[in-house]
Amino acid sequence: MLVNTTHVRVRYADTDKMGITYHSKYFEWFEVGRTEMLRDIGFPYTQLEQEGFGLPVLEAYCHYHHAATYDQLLRIVSTVANLPRVTIRIDYKIFNADQELLVEGYTTHPFIGKNGKPVRPPKSLLAALLPYFKNTDLDLPSPGGNGKNGKKE
Amino acid sequence: MLVNTTHVRVRYADTDKMGITYHSKYFEWFEVGRTEMLRDIGFPYTQLEQEGFGLPVLEAYCHYHHAATYDQLLRIVSTVANLPRVTIRIDYKIFNADQELLVEGYTTHPFIGKNGKPVRPPKSLLAALLPYFKNTDLDLPSPGGNGKNGKKE
Amino acid sequence: MLVNTTHVRVRYADTDKMGITYHSKYFEWFEVGRTEMLRDIGFPYTQLEQEGFGLPVLEAYCHYHHAATYDQLLRIVSTVANLPRVTIRIDYKIFNADQELLVEGYTTHPFIGKNGKPVRPPKSLLAALLPYFKNTDLDLPSPGGNGKNGKKE
Amino acid sequence: MLVNTTHVRVRYADTDKMGITYHSKYFEWFEVGRTEMLRDIGFPYTQLEQEGFGLPVLEAYCHYHHAATYDQLLRIVSTVANLPRVTIRIDYKIFNADQELLVEGYTTHPFIGKNGKPVRPPKSLLAALLPYFKNTDLDLPSPGGNGKNGKKE
Repeated sequence: MLVNTTHVRVRYADTDKMGITYHSKYFEWFEVGRTEMLRDIGFPYTQLEQEGFGLPVLEAYCHYHHAATYDQLLRIVSTVANLPRVTIRIDYKIFNADQELLVEGYTTHPFIGKNGKPVRPPKSLLAALLPYFKNTDLDLPSPGGNGKNGKKE
Repeated sequence: MLVNTTHVRVRYADTDKMGITYHSKYFEWFEVGRTEMLRDIGFPYTQLEQEGFGLPVLEAYCHYHHAATYDQLLRIVSTVANLPRVTIRIDYKIFNADQELLVEGYTTHPFIGKNGKPVRPPKSLLAALLPYFKNTDLDLPSPGGNGKNGKKE
Repeated sequence: MLVNTTHVRVRYADTDKMGITYHSKYFEWFEVGRTEMLRDIGFPYTQLEQEGFGLPVLEAYCHYHHAATYDQLLRIVSTVANLPRVTIRIDYKIFNADQELLVEGYTTHPFIGKNGKPVRPPKSLLAALLPYFKNTDLDLPSPGGNGKNGKKE
Repeated sequence: MLVNTTHVRVRYADTDKMGITYHSKYFEWFEVGRTEMLRDIGFPYTQLEQEGFGLPVLEAYCHYHHAATYDQLLRIVSTVANLPRVTIRIDYKIFNADQELLVEGYTTHPFIGKNGKPVRPPKSLLAALLPYFKNTDLDLPSPGGNGKNGKKE
């Protein structure tokens, strides 16, 4: 499992007349979360694009528990629970400085190639992810079938 | 069932470097959809606020099928399938001019009062919604219990 | 002189915790203004891009007189006072429904080609603009120098 | 003179289909600049609001030299050159990691009180600003008129 923590601060621009963060802004912060997660494993999204891949959004979901308010320093925790096969799913939780859970959500993303068509996950990305999923087979059962890496998470 | 159709045009500001609409923008368009729906039934959101109520977002979800691209004129179809009891749920579909379904999603909203605490749906809003749910009991079984309005949708 | 009028409605997403429109949003509305102006003269910005040109922003300015508030229907008046030579300047005024001037500002834009380098204004655009600048020379003094088109605006 | 440096990173959400940062986003970054500047002098904007004051935007200007592109780490330099009397003006320069000047601009802000009407700059803010303007009279010439602090910046 891959877990990353990063921070954002709520800008005036993020708030609305209800005095709280406008709900769509959290999806930008989810983007910040997954971007910093990829950077942290040595595979920044810019590199993914340079290799000819893209990660458009297939699904986005957010459940709002408490509002983020102006100037709060927020903690974004992004998690990849499973090695991507066809799509990658990232889960997010955002906390305020009092460690109160504000929102939780997820995004799912297919991998696309230069022509915009879906492709399998880039091997370079899988290689960067693999160390965080040590008990997971990457592609195939081990040759002898004796279960050396056979214990799925 | 309440259904409303309205339109938005994709601005340059809505696009990202992938050449398509950035995914969080659709949630702003969902807002446009529900706003125009409320206006259309004679109960604009501004009136809801003047009466001391608010409709913060509890959940937001979007599934992205095809990308909206720059300058497209989009059609937003917003639907309320059930009279709100504790929360209100609105479903959205967005189409391009070729009637291609681009995204579908929903938002749910509690009703809050001036102190920010959850309250029951405002009666004035329910009265405005009721004509669209003719076979639905608003609050109570009909007096005689003879099922005059008893056929739930 | 070319003048265009179009409308936008203030979204909740546009507001901030001061209860008014966040100041950077007006620049998106300026974009709406110039986009509809170009569409109106039969030369939409999409066509400009298809011909290989772009209009990045060189300068942007806004003076805020009164705040646009939630759900107001705004009127954007965009003006091109002079035929573009190296850059094009568009002036904007935004009014509320009471015809109160809320903001005024301008943007200037160079023309760039496919390589991102500055180029002269596309002839196709100049041709579309010319009818609105009838007393203006497009390029050169008239051959005989007899002032047929000599009256500059 | 008060000078502050802070950083932002360009998000995917900030870019547009031209592949660069959408021009209105820089105004959000100007907001980040002045917010961190106020925090740095020990007078965060939240405190200003708690004391009943606001700093709406009166004018905003930006000149775009080079585009900020996705994932760049930008340096925002915010400067207050003069102690505010009726309005405060902040100048901004934004640089990329190669120390290339991308944009420069300014915003001006009146001070408003709880009723939204213009007021004089809060004394608490002036006191926080004064150490950065050592050769500047705060309000009046010194009694004896002997010019001890008389050298205006």
